[in-house]
Amino acid sequence: MVNNFTFCTPTKVHFGKGVLKELHNEVTAVGTKVLLVYGGSSIKRSGLYDQVKGQLADCIIFECGGVEPNPRITSVRQGVEICKKEGVEVVLAVGGGSVLDCAKAICAGALYEGDAWDLVLAPSKITKALPLITVLTLAATGSEFDSASVISNLETKEKIGFLSPFVYPKVSILDPEYTYSVPANQISAGAADIMSHIYEQYICTESNLISDGMCETVLRTIIECAPRLLKDPKDYDARAQMMWASSLACNGFCSLGNGVRPWPCHAMEHELSAFYDITHGVGLAILTPELMRYSLNEDTVERYCHYGKAVFDLPEESDRMAMAKKAIDKTEEFFTSINLPNSLKALGIGEEHIDEMAQHAFDFNGAFHLCPRPLDVEDIKQIYRNCLK
Amino acid sequence: MVNNFTFCTPTKVHFGKGVLKELHNEVTAVGTKVLLVYGGSSIKRSGLYDQVKGQLADCIIFECGGVEPNPRITSVRQGVEICKKEGVEVVLAVGGGSVLDCAKAICAGALYEGDAWDLVLAPSKITKALPLITVLTLAATGSEFDSASVISNLETKEKIGFLSPFVYPKVSILDPEYTYSVPANQISAGAADIMSHIYEQYICTESNLISDGMCETVLRTIIECAPRLLKDPKDYDARAQMMWASSLACNGFCSLGNGVRPWPCHAMEHELSAFYDITHGVGLAILTPELMRYSLNEDTVERYCHYGKAVFDLPEESDRMAMAKKAIDKTEEFFTSINLPNSLKALGIGEEHIDEMAQHAFDFNGAFHLCPRPLDVEDIKQIYRNCLK
Repeated sequence: MVNNFTFCTPTKVHFGKGVLKELHNEVTAVGTKVLLVYGGSSIKRSGLYDQVKGQLADCIIFECGGVEPNPRITSVRQGVEICKKEGVEVVLAVGGGSVLDCAKAICAGALYEGDAWDLVLAPSKITKALPLITVLTLAATGSEFDSASVISNLETKEKIGFLSPFVYPKVSILDPEYTYSVPANQISAGAADIMSHIYEQYICTESNLISDGMCETVLRTIIECAPRLLKDPKDYDARAQMMWASSLACNGFCSLGNGVRPWPCHAMEHELSAFYDITHGVGLAILTPELMRYSLNEDTVERYCHYGKAVFDLPEESDRMAMAKKAIDKTEEFFTSINLPNSLKALGIGEEHIDEMAQHAFDFNGAFHLCPRPLDVEDIKQIYRNCLK
Repeated sequence: MVNNFTFCTPTKVHFGKGVLKELHNEVTAVGTKVLLVYGGSSIKRSGLYDQVKGQLADCIIFECGGVEPNPRITSVRQGVEICKKEGVEVVLAVGGGSVLDCAKAICAGALYEGDAWDLVLAPSKITKALPLITVLTLAATGSEFDSASVISNLETKEKIGFLSPFVYPKVSILDPEYTYSVPANQISAGAADIMSHIYEQYICTESNLISDGMCETVLRTIIECAPRLLKDPKDYDARAQMMWASSLACNGFCSLGNGVRPWPCHAMEHELSAFYDITHGVGLAILTPELMRYSLNEDTVERYCHYGKAVFDLPEESDRMAMAKKAIDKTEEFFTSINLPNSLKALGIGEEHIDEMAQHAFDFNGAFHLCPRPLDVEDIKQIYRNCLK
């Protein structure tokens, strides 16, 4: 069944080797007063920082560096202040998803009179934003091709995602070679993150031929390319396919027309990250197979069988439960094959916060009852417990 | 291998039952002086014309009706004149691909001082265009989600396609119910057209996991949905999937990163349509299997085997040529199963113009030598002859 949808991703993508050469034209088409947003020193070590500044020698560049892995509203405010004071015309984000997310909030905050945190809390207040151009260095979040941003506020102990059509990047420059320096553990965590973005849209109550095909394509692409990258981090083709798959996985394109998508795994993982500061993709890899196992019942069995056939080429079986279980086992096997743990115990995590995490996840997400197998707080606790194996 | 690419489809799509309710907001967001472009009387018979005018009761509406199935530059000029004289702010196209193509040329011509035909011949002269909003009534060309338009000039005997980033529809309103009135023969021809758009991108020298998956998804969708529609023209779900597949098939999205795509089948079909005035999709359905058969050799065999497995679930065979032939036979069988002819003879077409058509196609397309099996004029003649079977 194809449900009604509205879709628009206006971002222009320049993809491939050497596409940084497009940067100058794209930036100067919208302005010459530029705020350069970036994270740590890795873009300086890799030489990308110098390349970007070299390209923009005829622009006036202000800088907002040191953006944190979970970007904070304090960094956003700092960028907004520069934009307002200096009359910045275009924001250029160079980095991974956190840098891009921070830059999106800066773009919106720069054209808003009040405090930027207001916009994170109530994104409908965003009615305009500075143009954003991005140069991506890490394939995982999909921020380069969507309208989402997640910002943390340490004072109020909140980490909040917002969506606004005004913060789509105007242009995203994706050169897979800029991801060559991403190390093995981040390749694996990124793979789990991309796959989880798809599972959250794909394991749903209603789908259609097109969305299924798109989701299965992204899953198969990651399953083939992540192991290739672990063997040869400079496999350009695998880097390229991971990067483009990542961009497609998170802007809603792959699940257009599908039924409700409650994103249960992300809600549960955000609790793990908040309590134990583990890597998001690692948490997702542990949770995903156990969430699937717990969700397997008479109502969902055909979905998992379909998944197993389409993604892992499993042969059809008359024992549908057995086939569905194999599909889920294959999922777990894939994650362990790329060196991701399959148990919270392996991370030193025990029972201690399960009740609290389950209650938080349930309250904050608000849609667990709409999962293919509806879940309540007790169910969520049990899934966490099953991850302690 | 993922080749470099640039991609941007900025069009906002409202998809589903009843989405015409979005029309008023979308139109008035850009203007209230509207040029309504449409074709024959079918939108009056179906009631869509009245619905559209009812929605826009507070706008000033000028009309450019009677757009031809192969839209002519004379219709474009007529629309341009109204836009210039009346200060039209937004163009609204209601119809199929021809109406949309005509409206695109009007949008560009309205903001150009010279004659609109100049822009068709040299689209780089297009530097701005009026905003275009479309309401689609036929799934086939994909014009609602791309930057292409094909305009005919009877004086100069030319039919020329052009591309410009300025003519992407700003908004496309896709309600599958508006295609309920499309009759069986047009459903089949539309299916062949959509599939051919994909074959032209998919049967190429270089592809990647993502583009293959996207192309195969569209092909499988049409192969499942077209027969369902022939049985039940009001199968909403099948109409919806055909419509969205059609939109995705032609804007380049499905083949991002692929090698050169010379579109040989379209070049050969345009000659058939020009000489014999046959339906485009019918010509494509006849040509496609013979083009595939002729192109099958040691260099291309694996591509056809891959296609057969992915699209028709053919089992792997050690005799690769035999497997590839089965994939091609399956293609022809599908077209005949939806009542499309598999021979030019069935249309009363003989040898008479083959030499002329082959030379025309070869000269006009200019890229036959870049096909997976490179083709020269003699090859093209032979393919036409093979279609006489």
